[in-house]
Amino acid sequence: MTSRAVMQITSLTNDRIKAIRALEMRKERKETGLFVAEGAAILETARRNGFTPRTLVYQGNMEQTRIHRDLISATLDGGGDVLEVTETVLSKLASKDNPQSMLAVYEQRWSNPPIPAAVNLSSCWLALEEIRDPGNLGTIIRTVEAAGAAGIILIGTCVDAYSHETIRATMGSIFSVPLARMSREDFLTWRAEWPGDVIGTHLDATVDFRKTTYKEPALIVMGGEGPGLSDSLTRACSRLVKIPMASGQDSLNLAIATALTLYQVRSAHLKL
Amino acid sequence: MTSRAVMQITSLTNDRIKAIRALEMRKERKETGLFVAEGAAILETARRNGFTPRTLVYQGNMEQTRIHRDLISATLDGGGDVLEVTETVLSKLASKDNPQSMLAVYEQRWSNPPIPAAVNLSSCWLALEEIRDPGNLGTIIRTVEAAGAAGIILIGTCVDAYSHETIRATMGSIFSVPLARMSREDFLTWRAEWPGDVIGTHLDATVDFRKTTYKEPALIVMGGEGPGLSDSLTRACSRLVKIPMASGQDSLNLAIATALTLYQVRSAHLKL
Repeated sequence: MTSRAVMQITSLTNDRIKAIRALEMRKERKETGLFVAEGAAILETARRNGFTPRTLVYQGNMEQTRIHRDLISATLDGGGDVLEVTETVLSKLASKDNPQSMLAVYEQRWSNPPIPAAVNLSSCWLALEEIRDPGNLGTIIRTVEAAGAAGIILIGTCVDAYSHETIRATMGSIFSVPLARMSREDFLTWRAEWPGDVIGTHLDATVDFRKTTYKEPALIVMGGEGPGLSDSLTRACSRLVKIPMASGQDSLNLAIATALTLYQVRSAHLKL
Repeated sequence: MTSRAVMQITSLTNDRIKAIRALEMRKERKETGLFVAEGAAILETARRNGFTPRTLVYQGNMEQTRIHRDLISATLDGGGDVLEVTETVLSKLASKDNPQSMLAVYEQRWSNPPIPAAVNLSSCWLALEEIRDPGNLGTIIRTVEAAGAAGIILIGTCVDAYSHETIRATMGSIFSVPLARMSREDFLTWRAEWPGDVIGTHLDATVDFRKTTYKEPALIVMGGEGPGLSDSLTRACSRLVKIPMASGQDSLNLAIATALTLYQVRSAHLKL
């Protein structure tokens, strides 16, 4: 039983529709603390992780599956709005590449960084310094979940973790991977208490990332796409390693380098 | 000494400028067999790999480095055109995200697939079935070079390897990694002669990709972003493996899964 009803909207100039469209802008996401995710499978992942939509939007003339109906009642039960819209309205809200018949607005969640002394001894955190590319960040969030790492700390001025492009690239992992953020200065203070290795990849390192033992709990620190790790964060590492590359190449895509490092550091914990 | 001269162009409606802009469209790239790459460092990589621009475009009021001057004379010596343009003209040609002061038009190169019996015994080829995402393909081309694999075979209907987005993501590796293309049927015939393992990653596999020995030369086959490997290509594999994932996740980003597999299969050949 729900005490609220589904609203039908056919106008592109409806205020609720305009408010959702406005979330394409970083400024609006920052001010409202909201973000948009698309696609029934990803919305179902959100529900399983305890996220209830503020607003759920679906295309009226589509056949509804069990997942659709469950999402609608969960939204109404949680006090959210449910909007049934026309295909035209949905196409203005949905992504162009791979449009979905359902999307939802959620509240952003930011976690506190873990207390170093209280971190599980077998766990692994990832810190990203000034990451710039939304697709890379989304792919990294997805990979962190796959590698069973505990969460991500964004250091300094990073790309918005709640942009549409990042959310899409996470494929739902945005709802299960804790995200924290810190200034570089706060990170350096916090890191001083870290009980295990602080691991950085660096071109000048002389240790092959596959040929060393990492002291857990592990904290992996990756630098931004262009500049790599800053000098102060490089100095904060207890173990600098390098990923071997054939030919004269001097770098990998950031999401690739992060994935290789995560899978190496988490190796003993990953089983079929 | 060059017998040709630099042309100065200030008009956006100049035919040469319009022809370069048209290369943003796949149809135009297909018909002309040309593509565009941006940025002095990447153009220098092209030069080192024996690619001479058909047309080189640079912004007139920028200070020229040694690399700029070398590229200009190499283009003129090779019979290409050099266009000095205004900032306004260049901004219409260059990418929006990260505009560069120099770009060039090159001829696409497609390699023949290697003859299986003649393949170097320690080498590794990568085959991609119906890959759809231009950024993924570019990142994979870059990773293939880093892992020291020999080249890539595109199977069936794939995204255009010469789109601007793919080229940018390769960071210059487009000029050194051989690319071949085959229909699925031709691939299956060709694969029958492959002397080493044909390796596929598959959700139903029971072998951990880190816990098996790959018979070289290795041929890694990866499926497209959505559907994964087709049944016929899955059956064509001699070794099906799986990348372990924590939690209930059932897939990784394609470029990430490809990189993890490449680094595992190439492991013994990669040294600092």
